[in-house]
Amino acid sequence: MAPLPKHLTGDKASIDEFINQFDVFLFDCDGVLWSGDHLFPGTVETLELLRSKGKKTVFVTNNSTKSRADYLKKLTSMGIPSVEEEIFASAYSSAIYISRILKLPAPKNKVFIIGEAGIETELKSEGIEFLGGTDPALRRDITPEDYTNIANGSMLDENVGIVLAGLDFHINYLKLALGYQYLARGAKFLATNTDSTLPSAKTFFPGAGSISIPLVNMTGQQPLSTGKPSQAMMDAIEGKFQFDRKKACMIGDRLDTDIKFGLEGKLGGTLAVLTGVSKKEQWEVDDAPVRPHYYVDKLSDLMG
Amino acid sequence: MAPLPKHLTGDKASIDEFINQFDVFLFDCDGVLWSGDHLFPGTVETLELLRSKGKKTVFVTNNSTKSRADYLKKLTSMGIPSVEEEIFASAYSSAIYISRILKLPAPKNKVFIIGEAGIETELKSEGIEFLGGTDPALRRDITPEDYTNIANGSMLDENVGIVLAGLDFHINYLKLALGYQYLARGAKFLATNTDSTLPSAKTFFPGAGSISIPLVNMTGQQPLSTGKPSQAMMDAIEGKFQFDRKKACMIGDRLDTDIKFGLEGKLGGTLAVLTGVSKKEQWEVDDAPVRPHYYVDKLSDLMG
Repeated sequence: MAPLPKHLTGDKASIDEFINQFDVFLFDCDGVLWSGDHLFPGTVETLELLRSKGKKTVFVTNNSTKSRADYLKKLTSMGIPSVEEEIFASAYSSAIYISRILKLPAPKNKVFIIGEAGIETELKSEGIEFLGGTDPALRRDITPEDYTNIANGSMLDENVGIVLAGLDFHINYLKLALGYQYLARGAKFLATNTDSTLPSAKTFFPGAGSISIPLVNMTGQQPLSTGKPSQAMMDAIEGKFQFDRKKACMIGDRLDTDIKFGLEGKLGGTLAVLTGVSKKEQWEVDDAPVRPHYYVDKLSDLMG
Repeated sequence: MAPLPKHLTGDKASIDEFINQFDVFLFDCDGVLWSGDHLFPGTVETLELLRSKGKKTVFVTNNSTKSRADYLKKLTSMGIPSVEEEIFASAYSSAIYISRILKLPAPKNKVFIIGEAGIETELKSEGIEFLGGTDPALRRDITPEDYTNIANGSMLDENVGIVLAGLDFHINYLKLALGYQYLARGAKFLATNTDSTLPSAKTFFPGAGSISIPLVNMTGQQPLSTGKPSQAMMDAIEGKFQFDRKKACMIGDRLDTDIKFGLEGKLGGTLAVLTGVSKKEQWEVDDAPVRPHYYVDKLSDLMG
């Protein structure tokens, strides 16, 4: 059992010691830097403080609908100075995984996407061929002919070797039927992330994991996720940024994704903030499955 | 462990003994009477034989997109003489369960439907108020305003007390978001059936259980199913037809739905046919979880 986390808020000496031991800080965004459309006071100044001390800042998000470029626009619109190179989103993580780790031999390496434009942009950036996604031809009802043409393969691309599922606001029966058929014919099953819900407007909406779950239910297969807390994402981040894990710290609001992600990645540190989903009561119980190394009431407490 | 089933094919004396001990025969349809659009030879004659001996025949189907009237049309189009009173489909089963067993007090007893017209027809036949279903207003993309209006409740009907999910060929993000929100606010969760797949054109398409599974994934709640093998369906059938379970036999092709349904319902008999999904190797293994009492190679073998 991990010891209880150290509370840094208001403890200047411990904060300095905390910051000094790391070179890289990985940030979850919603619940840490902002909540919905509300930027937390002190977010920008805290990032500036860390950068002024020579620390690398990386924004790690499971948002699969946005490319890194889209996400940079979001950070900018929230008032957070950043550059695309600091952003690591789950759609990009999938693209990296497919092109640099999975490396299926051509021509049977096309990707059938269930998801939005962010995934397409990132696959393009890695030179990966794909179909599905935002194709308007698939935004329609299934027809009687489709059943025959899906079953006999004439509606399928025989070069699809991967089904990649992320959050898809245009999910429909036809896309699920096609995704299933590719999996049944042997395609590998990937997911940008498997978050069951998407927090929005102070409630929950279906998350990427609730878009791919029908395919799990039909095939009995679990997808390999390239989002937090999957270590496929940590491996991709490390591959890109080439840092020493012992000198890296994950900062997040969710024990089951962010903190778990950092702990399983054997990072030197994990810092929980209390401005999002998880509450300190969750790690204070005796049988807490996940305990961060440190916590602050809010991110800006790191300014001391 | 149940004993191995008795093979009736070609054994005239055993067939007569088998038929004579039952008053009621419950039939699964696809895989027993027909396969896809192909009526098995001898189906009509076998049903005639049983009826001529005074046996009651009931068609029990998990197809939730059709009302009993729709299903009667299907039977007729396949060349099978029947009447609506002999048909027990999962949408009707849900309607019966809601109106006669669940009996939520008005006004908070409206049903939000994820599913097709068959469910609407059957709820109407029991005088149950509903929304959702085939409403064209829900066959659209989610908008930014929807997030706010779903979250603040202004898009919701406060009298919804039940979410009922069946097979929905028009499933979309908006319907899933609404279904989740009603469940999160305390609505009861029902499913017409939870078949993960829908067999069609010699392959599989998403079944009703793969339409409701996103809501399971989001809420952590399992729906109460009113389709095979759920005993809620058996209770509804018994309530309607008032028969002695010991004098009833379930005939089906699937061990995990049809035969399990009959065994758990403690019917006097279960008969498997080999013209559908399950194979005899499945019950011949030592640790077979489900074994029918009897089997025939094909239904028409009952003609001796």
